[in-house]
Amino acid sequence: MLAYINKYAWERSLETGKAHYWSRSRQQLWCKGESSGHVQIIHDILIDCDADTVIYKVEQLGGAACHTGHKSCFYRVVDGDTLQVRGEPVFDPAKVYGRK
Amino acid sequence: MLAYINKYAWERSLETGKAHYWSRSRQQLWCKGESSGHVQIIHDILIDCDADTVIYKVEQLGGAACHTGHKSCFYRVVDGDTLQVRGEPVFDPAKVYGRK
Repeated sequence: MLAYINKYAWERSLETGKAHYWSRSRQQLWCKGESSGHVQIIHDILIDCDADTVIYKVEQLGGAACHTGHKSCFYRVVDGDTLQVRGEPVFDPAKVYGRK
Repeated sequence: MLAYINKYAWERSLETGKAHYWSRSRQQLWCKGESSGHVQIIHDILIDCDADTVIYKVEQLGGAACHTGHKSCFYRVVDGDTLQVRGEPVFDPAKVYGRK
């Protein structure tokens, strides 16, 4: 997954060892997994060359990072003019998040 | 590496099979490797769940994607209050890009 962080989310991630992001749409701190329980336990943090992007290397509780139930948000591959889905969802989002 | 693309860069990537990005600072198309020869041959393109981020899975000619000569731009890891460098540069940037 790719998500936005700010200084606040960064500091909370370091303090707690759990991945935090900043929701720009909701303008609030987002502890990934706060509703589903599928938090991300940070094992390593990598910083890029110009220090404006980080990678959290995590243990993903629940087995899937994506709200669709797929392990990764990047579960589709370009195949000519179409997209092919790779792999099956790990969980049913309706059961984890409830029907909205 | 993480970089920005727009529709133009996306279309050129699909047409050529080489990773193209859009330089927002220079406001121009950027074929990665255009000066160094270290182009990225695209093998797969993954699309994320909300279709605003892609992963180019590439063969990196020259062995390193980062302008520092490291294989990846993410060559530093957070270690308490410091950053530890992981791995050695694959090439000397001064030799590849020239001294500027």
